[in-house]
Amino acid sequence: MNRLIVLLTDFGSGIYAGVMKGVIYRIHPRARIVDLTHEVAPQNIREGAWLLLQSYRYFPPESIFLSVVDPGVGSERACLAVRTSHYFFVGPDNGLLYPAVADDKCLKSVALPVAPEASPTFHGRDVFAPAAARLAQGASLEELGTPAAMRVPLVFYRQGRWGEIVTIDRFGNIITNLPPLPEASCYEVEVTRSGTTVIKEVLPCFRTYAEAPEGMLFAITGSAGTLEISLKNGSAAANLGVQTGDLIRMSLEK
Amino acid sequence: MNRLIVLLTDFGSGIYAGVMKGVIYRIHPRARIVDLTHEVAPQNIREGAWLLLQSYRYFPPESIFLSVVDPGVGSERACLAVRTSHYFFVGPDNGLLYPAVADDKCLKSVALPVAPEASPTFHGRDVFAPAAARLAQGASLEELGTPAAMRVPLVFYRQGRWGEIVTIDRFGNIITNLPPLPEASCYEVEVTRSGTTVIKEVLPCFRTYAEAPEGMLFAITGSAGTLEISLKNGSAAANLGVQTGDLIRMSLEK
Amino acid sequence: MNRLIVLLTDFGSGIYAGVMKGVIYRIHPRARIVDLTHEVAPQNIREGAWLLLQSYRYFPPESIFLSVVDPGVGSERACLAVRTSHYFFVGPDNGLLYPAVADDKCLKSVALPVAPEASPTFHGRDVFAPAAARLAQGASLEELGTPAAMRVPLVFYRQGRWGEIVTIDRFGNIITNLPPLPEASCYEVEVTRSGTTVIKEVLPCFRTYAEAPEGMLFAITGSAGTLEISLKNGSAAANLGVQTGDLIRMSLEK
Repeated sequence: MNRLIVLLTDFGSGIYAGVMKGVIYRIHPRARIVDLTHEVAPQNIREGAWLLLQSYRYFPPESIFLSVVDPGVGSERACLAVRTSHYFFVGPDNGLLYPAVADDKCLKSVALPVAPEASPTFHGRDVFAPAAARLAQGASLEELGTPAAMRVPLVFYRQGRWGEIVTIDRFGNIITNLPPLPEASCYEVEVTRSGTTVIKEVLPCFRTYAEAPEGMLFAITGSAGTLEISLKNGSAAANLGVQTGDLIRMSLEK
Repeated sequence: MNRLIVLLTDFGSGIYAGVMKGVIYRIHPRARIVDLTHEVAPQNIREGAWLLLQSYRYFPPESIFLSVVDPGVGSERACLAVRTSHYFFVGPDNGLLYPAVADDKCLKSVALPVAPEASPTFHGRDVFAPAAARLAQGASLEELGTPAAMRVPLVFYRQGRWGEIVTIDRFGNIITNLPPLPEASCYEVEVTRSGTTVIKEVLPCFRTYAEAPEGMLFAITGSAGTLEISLKNGSAAANLGVQTGDLIRMSLEK
Repeated sequence: MNRLIVLLTDFGSGIYAGVMKGVIYRIHPRARIVDLTHEVAPQNIREGAWLLLQSYRYFPPESIFLSVVDPGVGSERACLAVRTSHYFFVGPDNGLLYPAVADDKCLKSVALPVAPEASPTFHGRDVFAPAAARLAQGASLEELGTPAAMRVPLVFYRQGRWGEIVTIDRFGNIITNLPPLPEASCYEVEVTRSGTTVIKEVLPCFRTYAEAPEGMLFAITGSAGTLEISLKNGSAAANLGVQTGDLIRMSLEK
């Protein structure tokens, strides 16, 4: 038994992720660890939840997602380990795990005890990494904690053709949670922030980046199967000034 | 048989590289994967090609270079797996693999089929990663695709003492493809962009960073064996305002 | 015998760390390699030394810390491999290894030979990585070099309640080497740079990030066990304009 441990955090490229790996290897010398990403925007639980939801299914069954985006670290929020139909998820009960766990169906969840000597600012190191290491070695959830339901839900906004900008990738692609419309050749796009419209324009739709003319904004179905907005050889997000968390509508042009 | 898989992409530190690793582990649970870099400038095929050319020989024979800088993803450009004298290269036929493959001598290449369900925006996940995983497990090229020559060449510019700025590293070192001149103590340096001279000055040459005085620009033979321009404890690239892709001449002072 | 190799460098996310891994795998195909961090600020030996000191104890005994922050590469500074009570450290003799080695007690150290063909700008690749690979395979220090003491010390500044800002993390937390005061509910904070006071203010102290009000600067005991200054959902370092290396006093308010 040597389950793969997959890391998703907002720790960036400093030492925090490396220290968690050290803790895992101390407990489980043969551990297999892989980085999903450490570049969730700082404290952005919603973005972390989206990235986890979109990615988990590409990993082998029985993988353990050690997920830490945890602005409430050290507070009363619970520390969870969850068994779903095909995977394990370990992390804070703040919504981060919710969409992926709901998607793969929750079978069982436990609250991890927090030792008095655990740092109140780094449960990733002192609570979550040890739990993931022991799961990877074959421990059962019951050995790790006491049964406890996940209490904090997180749902991405969807209301008809309104959705949200769930993340922006390195290329500046604006990624939404909106499904594509089968026959669309153009979308009317509207983005609002705090109730104010920041963009309203019509964009053409292409199947590949290569089809788009240089310098043109366009809609495309991205690799998550949802609509994205791209700018050929540039950053659509910088060009449009939009952010993760903005609400977005992408409808057929009337 | 468990060939090492080496990743080079322009994906940055988001989820895309992690998802490719998930796909590899699903197919090949014992895979050994190492990151060469994910920080090729977005869509910069030339820079990716240089980094691959300079790095491949430091890896064990039989390593598989899963290389994805792919602005033409989803278009007609072929997806290749290539056997060279000592290595394998997997990636798009857009020049990215060309210099390394030519350097190590191409023995055989195949075009990978693209399944209809592959995302037209992420062949790294749906085409290249699965091919690399199977090669790592010991598959032959013939099992992966049908014979097809690499069609898109990529050659770095060299004309006498003119060459190009092939990359800029984290320290701001300006890296060229120019060989050092054995007896040089100074170089006359000229940089042009779109035919306009942006810099022309004489720089001293040192063997180590330590020999250079604080705050001085200087030439040095870098770890790739080519000429670089450095600024002691600063960024030469920021100081001079040059970019990857600029043409550069480094000659003996007349 | 397969000791874990842990990398700490200032190489960022370019190819240099990947190339070192290639070199390790060529020598030691079964190597186990983990990244601690590659984001030490360029050439910042003091920051690298702090990160190593704070992190090493979380890794398994016998781990090898391959540590390269090396502005003096190619000069006369020695290349070292060190055995401490529980670990190995490999890197330049410039202070980088000193605090961690002193903390874990130096048992033995050797100077690594530098082959004439080694690049004078990349000992990480040509000297340190091969030494770490051989140590990982079970080589003894004596097989790697000749006995030589570490000569360059590095001590973090501490004088009563004055210390230094040792690093700033991704969240903008300002990390000091000052121990917390047991009963403090507020700290008087003073920061100086080159002898000039840049900040002097009183900050409240909280046990967790969650307790702090939005937008408030506060002191907290961080995961290294030392005092930090944080800004709830923001960057304290950007807000206060402080830097790694600044001197800092955190005293009880008088």
